[in-house]
Amino acid sequence: MSKPLILVTNDDGITAPGLRSLIQFMSALGEVVVVAPDSPQSGKGHAITLDTALYVKKMKGTGSNGKVLEYSCSGTPADCVKMGLQELLDRKPDICVSGINHGSNSSINVIYSGTMSAAIEAGIEGIPAIGFSLCDFSWNADFSIAESFIKKIVSEALLHKIPAGVVLNVNIPKLEKKAIKGIKICRQARANWKEKFDKRTNPMGKDYYWLTGTFDLLDKGEDTDEWALANGYISVVPTQFDLTAHHAIQHINNWELNV
Amino acid sequence: MSKPLILVTNDDGITAPGLRSLIQFMSALGEVVVVAPDSPQSGKGHAITLDTALYVKKMKGTGSNGKVLEYSCSGTPADCVKMGLQELLDRKPDICVSGINHGSNSSINVIYSGTMSAAIEAGIEGIPAIGFSLCDFSWNADFSIAESFIKKIVSEALLHKIPAGVVLNVNIPKLEKKAIKGIKICRQARANWKEKFDKRTNPMGKDYYWLTGTFDLLDKGEDTDEWALANGYISVVPTQFDLTAHHAIQHINNWELNV
Repeated sequence: MSKPLILVTNDDGITAPGLRSLIQFMSALGEVVVVAPDSPQSGKGHAITLDTALYVKKMKGTGSNGKVLEYSCSGTPADCVKMGLQELLDRKPDICVSGINHGSNSSINVIYSGTMSAAIEAGIEGIPAIGFSLCDFSWNADFSIAESFIKKIVSEALLHKIPAGVVLNVNIPKLEKKAIKGIKICRQARANWKEKFDKRTNPMGKDYYWLTGTFDLLDKGEDTDEWALANGYISVVPTQFDLTAHHAIQHINNWELNV
Repeated sequence: MSKPLILVTNDDGITAPGLRSLIQFMSALGEVVVVAPDSPQSGKGHAITLDTALYVKKMKGTGSNGKVLEYSCSGTPADCVKMGLQELLDRKPDICVSGINHGSNSSINVIYSGTMSAAIEAGIEGIPAIGFSLCDFSWNADFSIAESFIKKIVSEALLHKIPAGVVLNVNIPKLEKKAIKGIKICRQARANWKEKFDKRTNPMGKDYYWLTGTFDLLDKGEDTDEWALANGYISVVPTQFDLTAHHAIQHINNWELNV
């Protein structure tokens, strides 16, 4: 049996240490092809590039035998996945993994996340997919703590298959490996960001703003990703891209909508 | 009782005819404040701006009495909503409406849509919100066909409230007004895009790609937005930003995840 083909991508860009770690971990499980943005794409959500042409660069092979194929792409994470699947890979990958993101994508952050949008794009195209994030924004974060957990999750996903229409959002707490209690399957915690715009004046006298904010957890549930992370667990949230709020259809069907 | 405060935004930019129509329609229902991107932002998904400062410009008042406050913002649709809610409005709006988009945001397009990301951002912040799209990409599309339907939907939303955690995705078929059969509450049809990258060579001899593709409907259901639009109805999909695939939790709980 041939080794599984693993498409690796991210949103922090092709030079990010989190991507380098993920490539290394995945090389133990299968044949790896990398298609990653040529520059950081954090917070890009599910953006795609419609008004600009895309450039792709084939990089020098990496990995212990120099055989890991790597491409950088000028587009967003979702563009990278589309480009990989349609243009660069010679067969359908068995799985797509995105990350390891430098920073959390738990709770409502999934909506803004380029890491998860890459995984979701693969899911939309029928490829099993997982996004991995370490809750540590540092460029020099210690990704090695995640190795055994990530390999286990990807191995199980290859073995048991991820249900159609679902991608996994995996977040790893910033802890020493021995302090991590295990893996919990969770729901997305309800939360939002309390924005605070930092208003400044540029040297030409014109006002501008930086978007900043604080995370506001609005959910006391013990079955959420935030609870798991705060209590020493890795969180796995099965995430879907059918956004229909089925429970609301009946409510809105009672509105008077004749004109 | 004071008139409802209506925050109006879009993704095609502050000069787009679809936005101009929506401002006009909403002015009949309440006090309107506009915060819209200063340039087109189609396909931007739920992007936010983290690495660049944002500029805001107060425009000349518009509307029949010159009293419609308008701001343009250098950010994405989601940025515009954050900026409006935190910096520009003096009170919480009663509703946020986004659009009218030039082109469909039905089915899987909701994921890529800047129009819907603005509405979803408002929803995340606890504001009732609706995205409107006309299935006509033309800059000079006839938005007047949508007037009575949009006013009715917004009036009912103000009256009955949209359930918490839900925003509405409304698509209007490209038909003469008298050919529109009514409004249907729907689920999001399953579909994806079959990408085709148009590969070209630039004058310097370097290859580049344009992202193109065809829409591939994978859903024969008669309760979907695609079915409604194809059969002469306006589609309304209640859309949520809790992406948890609750039905998949049990499946993944059976994986062997101990390391």
